[in-house]
Amino acid sequence: MCTALTLKTRNFYFGRTLDLDKSYSEEVVINPRKFCFYLRNGYTIKTHYAIIGTAYVKDNFPLYYDAVNEMGLCIAGLNFVNYAYYSKERESMINVAQFEFIPYLLSKCASVRQAEEELKNMNVTDTPFSADLPVADLHWIISDKEKSITVEYTREGVNIYDNHIGILTNNPPFDMQLFNLNNYINLTPEQPHNRFSENINLDLYSLGMGAIGLPGDCSSQSRFVRAAFNKLNSVTGEGETDGVNQFFHILGGVQFSRGCCKGVNDYEITVYTSCCDVEKGIYYYTTYENHMINAVKMHNVNLDDEELFRYPHIKSEQFNFQN
Amino acid sequence: MCTALTLKTRNFYFGRTLDLDKSYSEEVVINPRKFCFYLRNGYTIKTHYAIIGTAYVKDNFPLYYDAVNEMGLCIAGLNFVNYAYYSKERESMINVAQFEFIPYLLSKCASVRQAEEELKNMNVTDTPFSADLPVADLHWIISDKEKSITVEYTREGVNIYDNHIGILTNNPPFDMQLFNLNNYINLTPEQPHNRFSENINLDLYSLGMGAIGLPGDCSSQSRFVRAAFNKLNSVTGEGETDGVNQFFHILGGVQFSRGCCKGVNDYEITVYTSCCDVEKGIYYYTTYENHMINAVKMHNVNLDDEELFRYPHIKSEQFNFQN
Amino acid sequence: MCTALTLKTRNFYFGRTLDLDKSYSEEVVINPRKFCFYLRNGYTIKTHYAIIGTAYVKDNFPLYYDAVNEMGLCIAGLNFVNYAYYSKERESMINVAQFEFIPYLLSKCASVRQAEEELKNMNVTDTPFSADLPVADLHWIISDKEKSITVEYTREGVNIYDNHIGILTNNPPFDMQLFNLNNYINLTPEQPHNRFSENINLDLYSLGMGAIGLPGDCSSQSRFVRAAFNKLNSVTGEGETDGVNQFFHILGGVQFSRGCCKGVNDYEITVYTSCCDVEKGIYYYTTYENHMINAVKMHNVNLDDEELFRYPHIKSEQFNFQN
Amino acid sequence: MCTALTLKTRNFYFGRTLDLDKSYSEEVVINPRKFCFYLRNGYTIKTHYAIIGTAYVKDNFPLYYDAVNEMGLCIAGLNFVNYAYYSKERESMINVAQFEFIPYLLSKCASVRQAEEELKNMNVTDTPFSADLPVADLHWIISDKEKSITVEYTREGVNIYDNHIGILTNNPPFDMQLFNLNNYINLTPEQPHNRFSENINLDLYSLGMGAIGLPGDCSSQSRFVRAAFNKLNSVTGEGETDGVNQFFHILGGVQFSRGCCKGVNDYEITVYTSCCDVEKGIYYYTTYENHMINAVKMHNVNLDDEELFRYPHIKSEQFNFQN
Repeated sequence: MCTALTLKTRNFYFGRTLDLDKSYSEEVVINPRKFCFYLRNGYTIKTHYAIIGTAYVKDNFPLYYDAVNEMGLCIAGLNFVNYAYYSKERESMINVAQFEFIPYLLSKCASVRQAEEELKNMNVTDTPFSADLPVADLHWIISDKEKSITVEYTREGVNIYDNHIGILTNNPPFDMQLFNLNNYINLTPEQPHNRFSENINLDLYSLGMGAIGLPGDCSSQSRFVRAAFNKLNSVTGEGETDGVNQFFHILGGVQFSRGCCKGVNDYEITVYTSCCDVEKGIYYYTTYENHMINAVKMHNVNLDDEELFRYPHIKSEQFNFQN
Repeated sequence: MCTALTLKTRNFYFGRTLDLDKSYSEEVVINPRKFCFYLRNGYTIKTHYAIIGTAYVKDNFPLYYDAVNEMGLCIAGLNFVNYAYYSKERESMINVAQFEFIPYLLSKCASVRQAEEELKNMNVTDTPFSADLPVADLHWIISDKEKSITVEYTREGVNIYDNHIGILTNNPPFDMQLFNLNNYINLTPEQPHNRFSENINLDLYSLGMGAIGLPGDCSSQSRFVRAAFNKLNSVTGEGETDGVNQFFHILGGVQFSRGCCKGVNDYEITVYTSCCDVEKGIYYYTTYENHMINAVKMHNVNLDDEELFRYPHIKSEQFNFQN
Repeated sequence: MCTALTLKTRNFYFGRTLDLDKSYSEEVVINPRKFCFYLRNGYTIKTHYAIIGTAYVKDNFPLYYDAVNEMGLCIAGLNFVNYAYYSKERESMINVAQFEFIPYLLSKCASVRQAEEELKNMNVTDTPFSADLPVADLHWIISDKEKSITVEYTREGVNIYDNHIGILTNNPPFDMQLFNLNNYINLTPEQPHNRFSENINLDLYSLGMGAIGLPGDCSSQSRFVRAAFNKLNSVTGEGETDGVNQFFHILGGVQFSRGCCKGVNDYEITVYTSCCDVEKGIYYYTTYENHMINAVKMHNVNLDDEELFRYPHIKSEQFNFQN
Repeated sequence: MCTALTLKTRNFYFGRTLDLDKSYSEEVVINPRKFCFYLRNGYTIKTHYAIIGTAYVKDNFPLYYDAVNEMGLCIAGLNFVNYAYYSKERESMINVAQFEFIPYLLSKCASVRQAEEELKNMNVTDTPFSADLPVADLHWIISDKEKSITVEYTREGVNIYDNHIGILTNNPPFDMQLFNLNNYINLTPEQPHNRFSENINLDLYSLGMGAIGLPGDCSSQSRFVRAAFNKLNSVTGEGETDGVNQFFHILGGVQFSRGCCKGVNDYEITVYTSCCDVEKGIYYYTTYENHMINAVKMHNVNLDDEELFRYPHIKSEQFNFQN
């Protein structure tokens, strides 16, 4: 369960929530240009665009949840359980394991347009990372400051959607999520007037009544609608801090509070929330346990290095005592 | 527009959001025991319980939005527009101006029970603080770790409700807010089973579908329901930090993202969110512009002093750069 | 469970649904002017306005569910379980047993205004009709072509509400039902335009999307909203048949289909639906088992008679075979 | 705007509503076995299964809205605006004009299985009936007592869905309608218990609260859900009249009351509602203007005749006066 978001002010921001009932050892990982990617198809990518994002690092391989490269291309993978379907290897295509999807494309592509070209020859396979890490059912949002697309591999084939609202959650498939927005055509952030009937006086007893009907639960379709409403109506300043601040507010609207949603094993929480200032390569994030916004700067390390730079997520509340 | 909340773990927490389309100069204000309260009824309270809370200070008088005293009594005032009705002065009663309600009761009472006694002889008047500060339409939640009540002065008289869920928002009156919760009896944080019909297979395509129907807008009634669902199902650890963390998550579920709700002049935002650890007298808060949790400790000042201790709300994002 | 309705075209119509999980022996009963009402307070009403309505006749006493008198005054009693509270007899008032409420007022009053006067001196008692017919928990709508009121006796006393929308269902009390309509201020019978955001194109994929959010279940509050929407937006011709036809369509919108709502013993059904042309004294009705509209004309009997005229409800489908 | 429905008791019933803002001259039309169908592809069907249904007859051709043949095969065509897409003629296939879809299949097929076979070789063309009768955008439900399918021709090709719930309305495509039902998994016709939280007492203040969340508007998706809930939970006797009665009650739940939904030109109304006892060949219907159930019996005419038997819909209220 997750929500991905793009936001454009004078800057361009890309991020997501990760909602789970357990937490792995998430880290902000900077992948410098000369870190070798050993692909399962036998090839090795020796030099590539530098990448920053949150990953679970296993056997020195960054399993990215969401990441951005130095050219401004952004990808996040989100759960797509029961719909996602990956193939076996095919001879005529470039076989890319599902867990290589993000680093492969971010290594090679500088824009969504280039990624779209690359996808034409790609076959995403169901090769697991390892015996104890089975293949995750995912779909992806790929964005740059100009456009976003959603990529879904299903039993019926691949669907690549123009994602013009820059939002992705989970099930159902993206076209149905978009269609469902039509059902909220009556909602407005403005103070409404009486449309019920001119034969009765109704009372605007509260601000915000124009959005009555907006769903408040944490199911994937409801989060899609809520994120769309809050993003599409977002009002924010043009400063960098303004955008980061507002980004976390919009995603705050789709967070899981512990106890409100039972997962498979435990209650779902928003394990982390990220917001990358794409141009500057600054990766901001919060964790459920820590409201403060932490940040890692891609350009503060030597991007021509060969080893991963790793910054474990900070998972305890940092207070600022004023006295 | 606001939401007040209590939360009991091993500790007891009290706080609220303040949602407005503009911001005054909010400060955390510690009111030590010998700060003189000059009441409009002519009396002066020279010594009293020490108080901490957020206030707008005008002419050296702390106009508290929410506050807690050293005995553990807590009060927050929330908008109650068009319903609130305050009286003129009455001879046989203790006349307390509406803006004195919080400091008066917190000065004198150590518990909700004592406050209830005090309220019997109180007449809350519509005396404005000053010509440029007209009387606000408010109702109040008064809490200690044992119980909460809601106090509403209306044209029909005063209503004092047992507030056993420890939540208050705005209109309509509290009894109607409570009644409205009945309409959400079908909602559950658990994964639901099919109750629609045994003659059809339905698909749990997402976690969280048990709470479909939870309202997601920011009107006062919808925030009441959402806060109730998130609080009553809240799961949290027993540590002090756990409780503070969870408190801000629950109130995060009723925050206003800028743009989602048009107010009278501008878009409503959650100007600040507070959470007081009542026993320890630590007042935590965040502001819309700052996700970090700031804190002021009542017992870090000399509570026998005579002057206010003032800590202006911090209104800019504080980042923690990890590199 | 029931819904009462008034409708004004050039004519004035009054009627209701009766929703139960069982059926008594409902009959259309004309109560002529000289039928004696022996009241439990010892008085006997020997001559009175003639009355027509649906009743369960027990020991020659018409226990009316809804009725209209020859002067155009109309009353329907609807379930008000757990809220209704009737008193013991009081010396200084005219004691009227709960089951006498309708015939007493219709016997004496020619208008809502007269009924309001009468109510001032009335004490409605909890005297049961008989040992095997316990007191029903009811509230009432009293209407003439000029106005409607709702009368509710509760533990807190009697509340007489101006019922300017001419609708009554069941719980909660009438003022809360009216307040709840405010939550539907966004609904419209018109084709809506996009208010969600100008940053997205939404598709009006169906007619009727302006009313998305209208509740479709059969709980009393949802039926109130639905009846209000359908009545307040009703468009109908001015002919008598037009009005009757439309009246049954509006109440058709709040009918119970067998199986959709479990009652205490069995599934609730709309046992009957009535619509009285008040001026002409024609009482139209349908039953669950019979879609055809049956009718009884008050003025087709000798209204100066002394005995009840009884027309059992027709409870089997009457088909019109065209070949 | 329409809703089609199947219902199986001991008998099998098939019918629909037709919701429009205007009315053509609808008639029940019996098409005997030797009435010649002159197809636009040049062929003539000289003998065929007898058919009964509602049609608009133009130039002696029955433009069926819904119909049933003597073998028990049933088809209804419902609006599918903006989605429906019909082809030009194709050489290798049997070209059937869109308006010939119902009579063609009912002429030749005795079961859904046979219709499915026939559809494999059919090309549904956009040939209009005449210059003043442009092609309607339709999709179809095809049923017998064993199964139902939905057939949709779209720009992407033909989709034939197993329609196991026996309901069809309008947009969006059928698979999305089915998916949307998942969102109502919490609804129940039973009296619900409190699932909101064990930390609060909630009051079942009304019967029917288990279905709160059921949509009550007349958009096509909401009618689909409502019809599904009322049908799948339907409780009815086994007699023929019982089934007919209940069928009209279920479709009564998705009727349009005049004024509640603005169409293109005028307010939408449920022009007619039909229910065919498929085995007996009895076609029952009501019209907006007439609540009585009219009926035409297929087997009361000479089915070996060559000319249409036509029974114009009765469009005025037929009352049964009991005195």
